[in-house]
Amino acid sequence: MNIIKVSANSRTAAVAGAIAGVMRENRLAEVQSIGAGAVNQAVKAIILAKGYLVNDHIDIVCIPEFVDVDIDGKVRTAIRLTVAPRGELPEIVLDQIDEQAPEALV
Amino acid sequence: MNIIKVSANSRTAAVAGAIAGVMRENRLAEVQSIGAGAVNQAVKAIILAKGYLVNDHIDIVCIPEFVDVDIDGKVRTAIRLTVAPRGELPEIVLDQIDEQAPEALV
Repeated sequence: MNIIKVSANSRTAAVAGAIAGVMRENRLAEVQSIGAGAVNQAVKAIILAKGYLVNDHIDIVCIPEFVDVDIDGKVRTAIRLTVAPRGELPEIVLDQIDEQAPEALV
Repeated sequence: MNIIKVSANSRTAAVAGAIAGVMRENRLAEVQSIGAGAVNQAVKAIILAKGYLVNDHIDIVCIPEFVDVDIDGKVRTAIRLTVAPRGELPEIVLDQIDEQAPEALV
């Protein structure tokens, strides 16, 4: 699945449109951001996308997690927000949650 | 319910502890932040809280929304992250979601 990458300069409406499009098609979207400005834009975009998806009767929640990503050979910690329909998380997310659990406790 | 207010200078571990405590007691927590730095700390704290709550068999998701708050007589837009157990959102959240829907479409 394509990850929607968000920067501090991303337009929230454009990101929200992308999230809504992916949710309509796949019922699951992954939004990734590095840094406070980017995380803020990502969260705002999810709020907008939530509004866009009301007409599609898709009510969304998000599940945040840390992920290590390689940027020009350097490892950076990104925040990934998995967007999923409320109350029916796909198996892929449940698997991720199970995998994360042990590390998350450290 | 008490709202957990997060600033850009909040320690994520402390906020995460507060979120986990409220989740254990009420199964619902509200985390509020204004500005990119604060939203970033709030999201990171939720990720940590998710780890803390694994032992309690509480798996959390979050639902972001905009809220207007009064700060010293000025109206500011805050981001509220409602933290709820996965797959069983309390009625109060469902009511909020229903109320929000019409405006969110504007």
